[in-house]
Amino acid sequence: MQYILNMFVMEHTKRVAVFPGSFDPFTIGHKAILDMALPLFDTVIVAIGINSEKRDFFPIEKRISHIKEIYANNSKVEVETYTSLTIEFCKQKQAMFILRGLRNTTDFQFEKSIAQMNRQLSPHIETVFLVTPPEYGHVSSTIVRELIRYGADISNYIPGKIE
Amino acid sequence: MQYILNMFVMEHTKRVAVFPGSFDPFTIGHKAILDMALPLFDTVIVAIGINSEKRDFFPIEKRISHIKEIYANNSKVEVETYTSLTIEFCKQKQAMFILRGLRNTTDFQFEKSIAQMNRQLSPHIETVFLVTPPEYGHVSSTIVRELIRYGADISNYIPGKIE
Amino acid sequence: MQYILNMFVMEHTKRVAVFPGSFDPFTIGHKAILDMALPLFDTVIVAIGINSEKRDFFPIEKRISHIKEIYANNSKVEVETYTSLTIEFCKQKQAMFILRGLRNTTDFQFEKSIAQMNRQLSPHIETVFLVTPPEYGHVSSTIVRELIRYGADISNYIPGKIE
Amino acid sequence: MQYILNMFVMEHTKRVAVFPGSFDPFTIGHKAILDMALPLFDTVIVAIGINSEKRDFFPIEKRISHIKEIYANNSKVEVETYTSLTIEFCKQKQAMFILRGLRNTTDFQFEKSIAQMNRQLSPHIETVFLVTPPEYGHVSSTIVRELIRYGADISNYIPGKIE
Amino acid sequence: MQYILNMFVMEHTKRVAVFPGSFDPFTIGHKAILDMALPLFDTVIVAIGINSEKRDFFPIEKRISHIKEIYANNSKVEVETYTSLTIEFCKQKQAMFILRGLRNTTDFQFEKSIAQMNRQLSPHIETVFLVTPPEYGHVSSTIVRELIRYGADISNYIPGKIE
Amino acid sequence: MQYILNMFVMEHTKRVAVFPGSFDPFTIGHKAILDMALPLFDTVIVAIGINSEKRDFFPIEKRISHIKEIYANNSKVEVETYTSLTIEFCKQKQAMFILRGLRNTTDFQFEKSIAQMNRQLSPHIETVFLVTPPEYGHVSSTIVRELIRYGADISNYIPGKIE
Repeated sequence: MQYILNMFVMEHTKRVAVFPGSFDPFTIGHKAILDMALPLFDTVIVAIGINSEKRDFFPIEKRISHIKEIYANNSKVEVETYTSLTIEFCKQKQAMFILRGLRNTTDFQFEKSIAQMNRQLSPHIETVFLVTPPEYGHVSSTIVRELIRYGADISNYIPGKIE
Repeated sequence: MQYILNMFVMEHTKRVAVFPGSFDPFTIGHKAILDMALPLFDTVIVAIGINSEKRDFFPIEKRISHIKEIYANNSKVEVETYTSLTIEFCKQKQAMFILRGLRNTTDFQFEKSIAQMNRQLSPHIETVFLVTPPEYGHVSSTIVRELIRYGADISNYIPGKIE
Repeated sequence: MQYILNMFVMEHTKRVAVFPGSFDPFTIGHKAILDMALPLFDTVIVAIGINSEKRDFFPIEKRISHIKEIYANNSKVEVETYTSLTIEFCKQKQAMFILRGLRNTTDFQFEKSIAQMNRQLSPHIETVFLVTPPEYGHVSSTIVRELIRYGADISNYIPGKIE
Repeated sequence: MQYILNMFVMEHTKRVAVFPGSFDPFTIGHKAILDMALPLFDTVIVAIGINSEKRDFFPIEKRISHIKEIYANNSKVEVETYTSLTIEFCKQKQAMFILRGLRNTTDFQFEKSIAQMNRQLSPHIETVFLVTPPEYGHVSSTIVRELIRYGADISNYIPGKIE
Repeated sequence: MQYILNMFVMEHTKRVAVFPGSFDPFTIGHKAILDMALPLFDTVIVAIGINSEKRDFFPIEKRISHIKEIYANNSKVEVETYTSLTIEFCKQKQAMFILRGLRNTTDFQFEKSIAQMNRQLSPHIETVFLVTPPEYGHVSSTIVRELIRYGADISNYIPGKIE
Repeated sequence: MQYILNMFVMEHTKRVAVFPGSFDPFTIGHKAILDMALPLFDTVIVAIGINSEKRDFFPIEKRISHIKEIYANNSKVEVETYTSLTIEFCKQKQAMFILRGLRNTTDFQFEKSIAQMNRQLSPHIETVFLVTPPEYGHVSSTIVRELIRYGADISNYIPGKIE
């Protein structure tokens, strides 16, 4: 019995994915990608990249608590911040996968180069892509921030509440 | 002990992916995608779609034996044929994932529509995309067949031997 | 009074658009484009192009009656067939506009060339484009025909009934 | 008589379009789109968006007078500025249409998301796209500003005179 | 003197390019690319590929004489047919360059793969791309054939006369 | 003899190309394009554009010496800086060609407009495009700078040493 269990555990390395982004804010599009990815992984770490050269819209604490609240009842989802290269963060977390969503060809062209670069820098970390559901293909954090600036209602584009 | 094992097994549903295609023939690009996907899944079924309206180049038996030989020592890879819709084949095999490679924006545009349609037809089956390594991005079964027609050497584009 | 009326009538030339396609079959995507275009035009002629070199899936009569039934209560929509160049059909119908839907960049690239060619052949006929709603962006007549071939349910992709 | 006139007026709601942009400056490409759109609408409002976060090249007054002069003899064209979301400006002007030109796939990808977002925010306002004539497809306000910075002649790219 | 001449001749290997295509028919777009390429090469061989699997529209002899007539006074241009892989024809002609025109992203995506494949098959033969002038970007042999089928005037799209 | 030499010299105008860019830094991708272009031209001037509005990463002197060192033994390659429009620099250098590399559709869309604009501004200067080898298609100066910021090893992406 013990023997079988051990073999099984050895064979089944835990599948950990890092889902990197600014998430400024986390949209229904991000949520759709993450929800679709959960059956594929044992743990998904939502990794908020902190970039000192980019101005934040929502403070980092609000972004963290927003995502944590949405996944409060899902033990597979963790939320963290990082300041290094994404692959360095992956190594530190022993994550073998990077998760990214694809909305359109502009996304794809950009993501393809990043994924190929990451694979070259670290051949054992693979980027896994899921396609955004069509009804969210036009949603982006950029457009949501623009809507907020003009005082428009964003409740259709943000899961839960960010403030 | 038994209790822990059962819990573990329950939690870890086996992750089965279908890798559908014509594979006429299976190229180094296909092999790269499959090899990169293996850590993500417990089983990957290479599923050769049989389409009565399309003329074959290599007979189906040769395509099967070609792929089987390449993965002779990898128990995670299975090779099958199917004639139904891909999602019907997935259901039959209890596969919750479809695996596809992306080389360029033309691929992406086409694959995106198919993936969104499949998700709508069967919401519990998700298409997982990996990006083809840059050095194989120009390789396709179509170009390989063209090379064969003109008597050119294809050994750089085909893993193992197909004939 | 009479003076005002006349002026108004003179100013307002009737806006007639031709919506050309194979419509084999007419999908929810086509319907969405046509419905969005109706406020823009006084009449929209759904123009089913008959191409002797292309094999039909649905017979032309079924396609006509399918679309006519959907718009039975809308006097702005007419359904016709044509065998000439689209711009020749437009001239014959005194239509100054061609209506086309755009789903993605592949559509756009193709449609752009056709629109520019048509404008050059007939500078007074302009092609007007509307963007397909995101939730129908993956629907095409080609995919619907594929689903039918495999016996899948297409009721989500076709308005009304075609058979 | 009166009865007929009323019916006609009721049926023919005035078709007003907003043509939004920075127009910094208004190019021959913008003019081509606007000219092609005039038969489609009763009024087109060229709407210069004022964005406090973007640095202007030409002062807003010059941009207004430049466009007004070009269309001095066309009563269908109005020129205005706005600071709100485009759809809010449309509602205020009772415009049911937004007019945009498409030059290439990069334009299309961007415009598609904006149009789909606007439709969702306000389902009765539709974005109408026309394709830029091929001979102006490489002209943009950005390139024109670049040419001015280097002292190059821009008279081929700007209708009339902006200074 | 002789020494200088020899050095010069040695340094200046003759630059021969193959301009491959179906040219069924040769359009104003093809002519524009070829004319722009002439200063770059000492000889350009217009190479009409004969593909037994593709149905011709214009007989091969007409295509040859059409192009020969256009360049009757230009000793740099030669017209030939070939049935092999393009790079094999290049080797036979000691041509180190392949010339291709690019109209749009669809062209580019396709041409890029072919060029990368050819470079791999024969590292000393390079594909040189020129961009089609914007006013011809919508012209293609396919559209011209379509126009002919419908009896439309094609004189704007074809240099000289093909019949 | 003299006569023949003169004829030859007259016929063979020296083919000079300008290869413009920021080269901040010069990558293996830039080197691949330049190396492939050398058989096509008699001289290639690597032209580092100095843009007062863009912040430099590597000082201009380092960029110059980096490229000069790589091509120290190749008399065909010159390295210069310029501050004018690229075509003005070409005229000043009597260069009839601009050399540019294409990695993907995003590159292509952008480069196409610039090339068409340059051709219009100066019809005798043509832009010649080569396709980046697939294995370097994901490399860009931007990504290299990003890697440097995070302290990653860039020796795989830069020819020679820049520091």
